Amino acid sequence: MRLLLASQSPRRQELLAKLGYPIEIVKNKVDEHVSPDVPADRVAEHLARRKALAGYPVAHLADDEVLVTADTVVVLGGRVLGKPASHEEASAMLHSLSGRSHEVYTGVGLTTRHESCHSFTEKTTVHFRPLEDKEIEYYIDHYRPYDKAGAYGIQEWIGMVGVSRIEGCYYNVMGLPVARLFEELKLLMSKS
Amino acid sequence: MRLLLASQSPRRQELLAKLGYPIEIVKNKVDEHVSPDVPADRVAEHLARRKALAGYPVAHLADDEVLVTADTVVVLGGRVLGKPASHEEASAMLHSLSGRSHEVYTGVGLTTRHESCHSFTEKTTVHFRPLEDKEIEYYIDHYRPYDKAGAYGIQEWIGMVGVSRIEGCYYNVMGLPVARLFEELKLLMSKS
Repeated sequence: MRLLLASQSPRRQELLAKLGYPIEIVKNKVDEHVSPDVPADRVAEHLARRKALAGYPVAHLADDEVLVTADTVVVLGGRVLGKPASHEEASAMLHSLSGRSHEVYTGVGLTTRHESCHSFTEKTTVHFRPLEDKEIEYYIDHYRPYDKAGAYGIQEWIGMVGVSRIEGCYYNVMGLPVARLFEELKLLMSKS
Repeated sequence: MRLLLASQSPRRQELLAKLGYPIEIVKNKVDEHVSPDVPADRVAEHLARRKALAGYPVAHLADDEVLVTADTVVVLGGRVLGKPASHEEASAMLHSLSGRSHEVYTGVGLTTRHESCHSFTEKTTVHFRPLEDKEIEYYIDHYRPYDKAGAYGIQEWIGMVGVSRIEGCYYNVMGLPVARLFEELKLLMSKS
């Protein structure tokens, strides 16, 4: 089995490589705007499916190849937090996450030439202890989390010192639910 | 503040360094045998305190130095799992963890010249999906987890593909409850 990953996220590439299968990164640009009619807990899978269906030409897949697409979304009180466009927006997001729990959803799509996109969602609940203003400022200045939904990376400084507990899969918060993905790939192989 | 870490664990050294304080590694050899009278959920903190009190001479600490000691214990059904002495023992441990939940306790001791060891314990619940025999064999052969309590590292292959969820702090399972430690160090500083 060979995995084609349609994601430019270095974290996702690193996690997928850890599974032990050969991987290749493919380009796959889609519009990431989602209608507000899609419930917050379905947005990630919705985008993972769109990336699978609108992007890479499935007819180009070899028999032993699986196209992996994914999207990760941070949800606070039912509202999706995107990527912060400025220092002020990053600061506002981190202040809103401080001292409470939020949900991280990663949606994954698995596509073969025989089966059009099989998809699933994994949820992890993340709890931040109360963060101090100076901790938030330090993090934004030093880590510039402008490419990160919710303005933080759990594997970066603010995640290490600020996340007191999670419920669910840690790697899901980084961008791929590795254990679930491994299981789903085994199922897919056993069917083909 | 300067942190002296009495631990030879490279994982613990790496995690402590991430806090952002200057650190130094010190030698601290103690007998790790614990009386069966100590409850399983207290063993880690018991050893962290022993490492603090029996090891590094506290009188040598400067005013701004904190000696950090720690121990991590894996508990399955009330029984402490130690480090496996052989391939067979590692295999038996991983089979016993497969398809169920266990607890990981890390006990930490913080010692200054003014305050004799302040200690605390952090617990994380870890759930392994059912592991296949060949997955367990592959992991032991390739990762040789003989230095790891419970015969696994959550950051290694078997942790990534096998741990479906945790409840608590991820870094606690690696050997240091980073967020809690950061808070406790801030408290200690505010008192001195």
